[in-house]
Amino acid sequence: MVDIALIEAAARRLDGHVRETPLLSSPFLDRIAGRRVLVKAECLQHTGSFKARGGWAAISALDEAARRRGVIAYSSGNHAQGVARAAAALGAPAVIIMPSDAPLLKIENTRALGAEVVLYDREGEDRDAIGARIAGDRGLTLVKPYDDPQVIAGQGSTGLEIAAQAQARDVMQADVLVCCGGGGLSSGIALALEARAPGLRVRTAEPEGFDDMARSLASDRREVNSRRSGSLCDAILTPSPGEITFPILRRLCGPGLVVTEDEALRAMALAFLRLKLVLEPGGAVALAAALFRPEAITGDAVVAVATGGNVDAAVFAMALDRHEAAT
Amino acid sequence: MVDIALIEAAARRLDGHVRETPLLSSPFLDRIAGRRVLVKAECLQHTGSFKARGGWAAISALDEAARRRGVIAYSSGNHAQGVARAAAALGAPAVIIMPSDAPLLKIENTRALGAEVVLYDREGEDRDAIGARIAGDRGLTLVKPYDDPQVIAGQGSTGLEIAAQAQARDVMQADVLVCCGGGGLSSGIALALEARAPGLRVRTAEPEGFDDMARSLASDRREVNSRRSGSLCDAILTPSPGEITFPILRRLCGPGLVVTEDEALRAMALAFLRLKLVLEPGGAVALAAALFRPEAITGDAVVAVATGGNVDAAVFAMALDRHEAAT
Repeated sequence: MVDIALIEAAARRLDGHVRETPLLSSPFLDRIAGRRVLVKAECLQHTGSFKARGGWAAISALDEAARRRGVIAYSSGNHAQGVARAAAALGAPAVIIMPSDAPLLKIENTRALGAEVVLYDREGEDRDAIGARIAGDRGLTLVKPYDDPQVIAGQGSTGLEIAAQAQARDVMQADVLVCCGGGGLSSGIALALEARAPGLRVRTAEPEGFDDMARSLASDRREVNSRRSGSLCDAILTPSPGEITFPILRRLCGPGLVVTEDEALRAMALAFLRLKLVLEPGGAVALAAALFRPEAITGDAVVAVATGGNVDAAVFAMALDRHEAAT
Repeated sequence: MVDIALIEAAARRLDGHVRETPLLSSPFLDRIAGRRVLVKAECLQHTGSFKARGGWAAISALDEAARRRGVIAYSSGNHAQGVARAAAALGAPAVIIMPSDAPLLKIENTRALGAEVVLYDREGEDRDAIGARIAGDRGLTLVKPYDDPQVIAGQGSTGLEIAAQAQARDVMQADVLVCCGGGGLSSGIALALEARAPGLRVRTAEPEGFDDMARSLASDRREVNSRRSGSLCDAILTPSPGEITFPILRRLCGPGLVVTEDEALRAMALAFLRLKLVLEPGGAVALAAALFRPEAITGDAVVAVATGGNVDAAVFAMALDRHEAAT
């Protein structure tokens, strides 16, 4: 059961080990959106995404014996780095199962953060079987990317910061847009805001074609994406809302927002130009919704969580190139 | 006379109007530098550079009548935007004299921030004569970019933050590298550190060919650059150290550091990859010195001030393109 007490306990364990990221703004973005835009810059978090929070929360919650045996995670991206960093700092061996065609940089980063990377062939090998064998042999604890109470609680610490930072700016009523994959960050923030800033309401933001959460919120049951890949927003492509996260979001979240991939790239170019932040496409969809879906948002202000910045130079250059003139 | 009292008074006037920027780090940068690297992210300041501090400090120090008459500044870049933002917020009309061949984006930004932009022809017109006529006609106060006690005091507020943030990380002895043009930021930080963190010592960082401060610190007199333009580090190209700033730096600053333009571009690529920050070339020279001049630095940790992020997409893409493989 995830609740505000679990989130606050996680926040205490995270204190001094993750960054309180700044809430940034620009009058130029306000003009585009037609309201005040506040950007929670989680791309500045350790490892370049909010995943450092959930990784730390989950591993720091293990008892001493489990921690010493170690943890395992499946990820080709941000979750891998978040788990690897926390495990190394907390003295837990970490095994990360990654597809052998994952970007070399992400594999190297995960290794450099101290994890043992086990590669598998997406076509010919069964990821779960490989992971289960290693986990069984060594007694490792699986750290899931979102459907885990401690992971949700860790991501929810972002919501505690947003509540305090918005209050300090006299923003008491606003939509809080969150880039959404499985819903771990969105549901954690939703619970934190319910308790600490009830005038702030979470809204999920997703890329077109991968809008399982928006459709699930509309139909009131967990919908599935027809595709699993094929978007630049790779960090937030999940098959369907989580079992734990969806009931929380069904209760607390407003209608889901959906943006095009091109709008995400344009938001990246604007974050470059106006905020001096590097965002990855999946980390820019909430800002894109804040800027380009003004009619779907209520209130004088909007908060957008910029969830990550782990983007290849080539994709970043494409965003700048395509949108420099338009910004 | 600039001293710690003037800096603290400026910091009180700035409170709530400029950002306390974060001090960021990455284990990957530490490995390159061979020591702990702490990056003061002034590129996240309002207007994309530390100049928002000095502009606010200078205009907020004016008496009511002078403020109502207005201010004037000469700048094609960051100082223009810092002055324009502060003037608009503090109710002072602002005239910014800019060369007609300045980048259109910078002219438009300065106008969008509320200033009246007066363009002049670099070849055929005398900038100072144009400015003096307008200032005389309207009774405007000139806000100099660095050789002004209140501007130095405003930039010095950065040093108060560095002192507190370094202390919070148990960094009591370190070089603090500052990208240096006329020396306003460097001298302000030097005075703040002298009073609040005497174990931290300012070191200026400049691009090759425009190392007037490093040469002046070595020869103990104000040296002049032979060239005035022709570097991507346009934000920090000044003819020579300031009259007010140089005596402060001569007393408090360690030997000046010099990096190549290519090293500045490589530091930009690393800030993109490891910190998710957008830096301009002139704003990256201190980080470049921290990373690529380890033998010239002492101590287990180094602080680098990333002074600004106002860079064209084309220059940024060039930095990424040239150094992606090397990072």
